[in-house]
Amino acid sequence: MSDETRTIREAEDRVGEFCEQRNWDQFHNPKDLAIGIATESSELLELFRFKTPEECGAMLSDVKQKQRVCDELADVFYFVLRFAQMNGIDLYDSLTEKIAKNNEKYPVNLSKDCNKKYDEF
Amino acid sequence: MSDETRTIREAEDRVGEFCEQRNWDQFHNPKDLAIGIATESSELLELFRFKTPEECGAMLSDVKQKQRVCDELADVFYFVLRFAQMNGIDLYDSLTEKIAKNNEKYPVNLSKDCNKKYDEF
Amino acid sequence: MSDETRTIREAEDRVGEFCEQRNWDQFHNPKDLAIGIATESSELLELFRFKTPEECGAMLSDVKQKQRVCDELADVFYFVLRFAQMNGIDLYDSLTEKIAKNNEKYPVNLSKDCNKKYDEF
Amino acid sequence: MSDETRTIREAEDRVGEFCEQRNWDQFHNPKDLAIGIATESSELLELFRFKTPEECGAMLSDVKQKQRVCDELADVFYFVLRFAQMNGIDLYDSLTEKIAKNNEKYPVNLSKDCNKKYDEF
Repeated sequence: MSDETRTIREAEDRVGEFCEQRNWDQFHNPKDLAIGIATESSELLELFRFKTPEECGAMLSDVKQKQRVCDELADVFYFVLRFAQMNGIDLYDSLTEKIAKNNEKYPVNLSKDCNKKYDEF
Repeated sequence: MSDETRTIREAEDRVGEFCEQRNWDQFHNPKDLAIGIATESSELLELFRFKTPEECGAMLSDVKQKQRVCDELADVFYFVLRFAQMNGIDLYDSLTEKIAKNNEKYPVNLSKDCNKKYDEF
Repeated sequence: MSDETRTIREAEDRVGEFCEQRNWDQFHNPKDLAIGIATESSELLELFRFKTPEECGAMLSDVKQKQRVCDELADVFYFVLRFAQMNGIDLYDSLTEKIAKNNEKYPVNLSKDCNKKYDEF
Repeated sequence: MSDETRTIREAEDRVGEFCEQRNWDQFHNPKDLAIGIATESSELLELFRFKTPEECGAMLSDVKQKQRVCDELADVFYFVLRFAQMNGIDLYDSLTEKIAKNNEKYPVNLSKDCNKKYDEF
């Protein structure tokens, strides 16, 4: 498992290298990269459409079907990394800051064992 | 910039810790996490709706507006990490494999300086 | 119930009137209208995130929560109508043609009582 | 052009008939239909990804490419109609109510010739 040893920057560098070889900076403006993230997310979601919880679980236990899930998740990850890279955003810092905010929006005593959105508290 | 030093696993651990404190494993099935990725992606995209390229660029140059972009991107990243964690998926390996596949779908000679999708070649 | 008596064109005309008063043709290019449809769809979907089937059913039985659902669905409908209007697309004809295609992709004998996608047959 | 003469109910009936033949009520809960709307919206949006305004315009002028756009738009429309039908929602009334609300959120004097979101006024 590489996630233990690989830094986020290394993942960004893989993506950057791929795009640089193709000279794709010219197309990778924020709006189109956001479209990229959204459309790839939707392809991941589409795999679970009309499936029961049991069928979704079975998909993740099947080697071939799990590969499709990994491929779609990787496509989302690719565009998230690229968006960060092209716009000088540090993903780890942004995540840490956002979790701190969510910590206030979702206090443990209200959100424990609870699937409510913060505006439903 | 933390992306240089932080591993992907460390980012996953931040997310896992937050969810564990709230006992949220019970709600974090693949289908709902995929909905999470898709809906947060869409909130990022929504920031650029009806904006010209110049206005999108200006957003990223404005400290306050850039913060909103970082927050939305972090929300997507949060759910991508959580999806990987809950389903035993290695993001770095999945990304590397997917880039290898894209390398064949988008050969440099055809895709250089070109915004076509592979099925348009 | 107005759906029985109102034509699709009348719905398009309501939307067109609203946009004309604001001189919005200039912003309503196909790409941004497609972003509009996608982001509003996602707001509808977001209402059901992490909810069980029972909770989703209860939302539709509650007057106030159902109103939120209607509002989000109306936002999607608004942009679908606007997209059709701005690009000279007849929605009823397009729907009829697409259903004819789906009729071949989903033959009754294979798809009856079945939640599979056509590429899983 | 059928939109002039066909009622919204007639479009809903086409969709209902198709689903009834396949006994699909059992799968068409609000959450999965909302996923349907979102994923089909995203397929429409995907057609415009990384395309310039000129290229998007050219797509709509090309018969074959326009057909793809119509097909994707019809898929969104199909799920919007189905969602309304399964949940007893009147689309025309919901649209009319929502436009009345938007009329207050987007007063003509502030929104004329302006692409700002209401929370940016």
